[in-house]
Amino acid sequence: MERLKKLYEGKAKILYTTSDPDLVIQYFKDDASAFDGAKKGTIIDKGVMNNHVSNRIFQFLEGKGIKTHFVKCLSDRETLTKKLDIIPIEVVLRNVAAGSLCKRLGIEEGRVLEKPILEFFYKSDPLGDPMINECHVDVFGWATKQEVETLKSEGLKINNLMIDFFKARKIRLVDFKLEFGRYKGEVLLGDEISPDGCRLWHWDTNEKMDKDRFRFNMGNVEEKYQEVYDLICSDSD
Amino acid sequence: MERLKKLYEGKAKILYTTSDPDLVIQYFKDDASAFDGAKKGTIIDKGVMNNHVSNRIFQFLEGKGIKTHFVKCLSDRETLTKKLDIIPIEVVLRNVAAGSLCKRLGIEEGRVLEKPILEFFYKSDPLGDPMINECHVDVFGWATKQEVETLKSEGLKINNLMIDFFKARKIRLVDFKLEFGRYKGEVLLGDEISPDGCRLWHWDTNEKMDKDRFRFNMGNVEEKYQEVYDLICSDSD
Repeated sequence: MERLKKLYEGKAKILYTTSDPDLVIQYFKDDASAFDGAKKGTIIDKGVMNNHVSNRIFQFLEGKGIKTHFVKCLSDRETLTKKLDIIPIEVVLRNVAAGSLCKRLGIEEGRVLEKPILEFFYKSDPLGDPMINECHVDVFGWATKQEVETLKSEGLKINNLMIDFFKARKIRLVDFKLEFGRYKGEVLLGDEISPDGCRLWHWDTNEKMDKDRFRFNMGNVEEKYQEVYDLICSDSD
Repeated sequence: MERLKKLYEGKAKILYTTSDPDLVIQYFKDDASAFDGAKKGTIIDKGVMNNHVSNRIFQFLEGKGIKTHFVKCLSDRETLTKKLDIIPIEVVLRNVAAGSLCKRLGIEEGRVLEKPILEFFYKSDPLGDPMINECHVDVFGWATKQEVETLKSEGLKINNLMIDFFKARKIRLVDFKLEFGRYKGEVLLGDEISPDGCRLWHWDTNEKMDKDRFRFNMGNVEEKYQEVYDLICSDSD
């Protein structure tokens, strides 16, 4: 299946239409951005690594009964997916305190949370993706109550599956972001799961293996993305 | 009953112990602050007006079956209340979009919300009272699940009662903040309800009659507090 028209260009991916109106092609770029676009740069071959890492994870999740947009990998940077009507809510799951949680609530980085924390953010670049609650979602019509229940239950289920998936590869899943969308009456997991939207720390050393290396100029960005890629894409369980 | 020792001094009130360990005296100051203390000033006789306005409202709510800390008014600036173990959560109810809701979510001021929005904020001056959700409350132990249910159900009940109370006095209840505390196994409404913590707009003209006049240097601060006081304390229904 081939790309036809550019449908949407985001910060890290481009979506193209295909000859099938229900399917789109996700093209993964090397562009990296942080702090709501204030910091921009390139991570060499990020697109290739994230495409393969995300596909590996989506296939794993499909195998565990999670419904996703994944159809098939087309090339190093291209994946065929179902065309979702994206729900404008970022679902964040946290297992260890890091990032904005620490800043907002004065929690020390690295504190293990005794239960996962689930947060909703309203997807809006101009507003800087503000945190929201279920009342906002309801009153402003961003999702139905039933969809909110699905986001919560699927989010927690995916978190549990991903903790074990990463742990088996010597990686600690600190936190990560999910996006969902509507497709023929169902809510499917969309977007990507990769070091761009996850905080991943090495299980033994707590070394950061994710976009925080880019955000905070920690160096070895490509090397750590590659390490995650190797740990996730070199096995076959 | 007389003040003994200063127990706590906040931005707008001082709490004193009394001879009864279960009771404290709230003393209402004229000090006003906004933007997490960045703006400070005085609103002449605010303490007197807020004390009487708040007592009037707490007595009204008690009459409607809401459990509050109110015991009795002692003087123009002093009220005897039950000594609460304050739950560190500000419960905000919104009926019309204003303030931080507009800023955070890009909603135009004055938009009537088709249902009330309830928000939780973590009471912390150094952190600037960040918005939180029920997961944060649970994981960080700020309140039990049962207490959270009480905050929500009492918050919504109080909002409905207050909308009608203010409407009968030609005032639109735009939004307001509530605090609750534990007392002998129960959760009681604490703090105060006054133009300091409510957005109140004149029903006919939408003129602001609350602390926004102080926040944004709109002038006639004392006059509008006085108007609220007159509308609320001059009747007896």
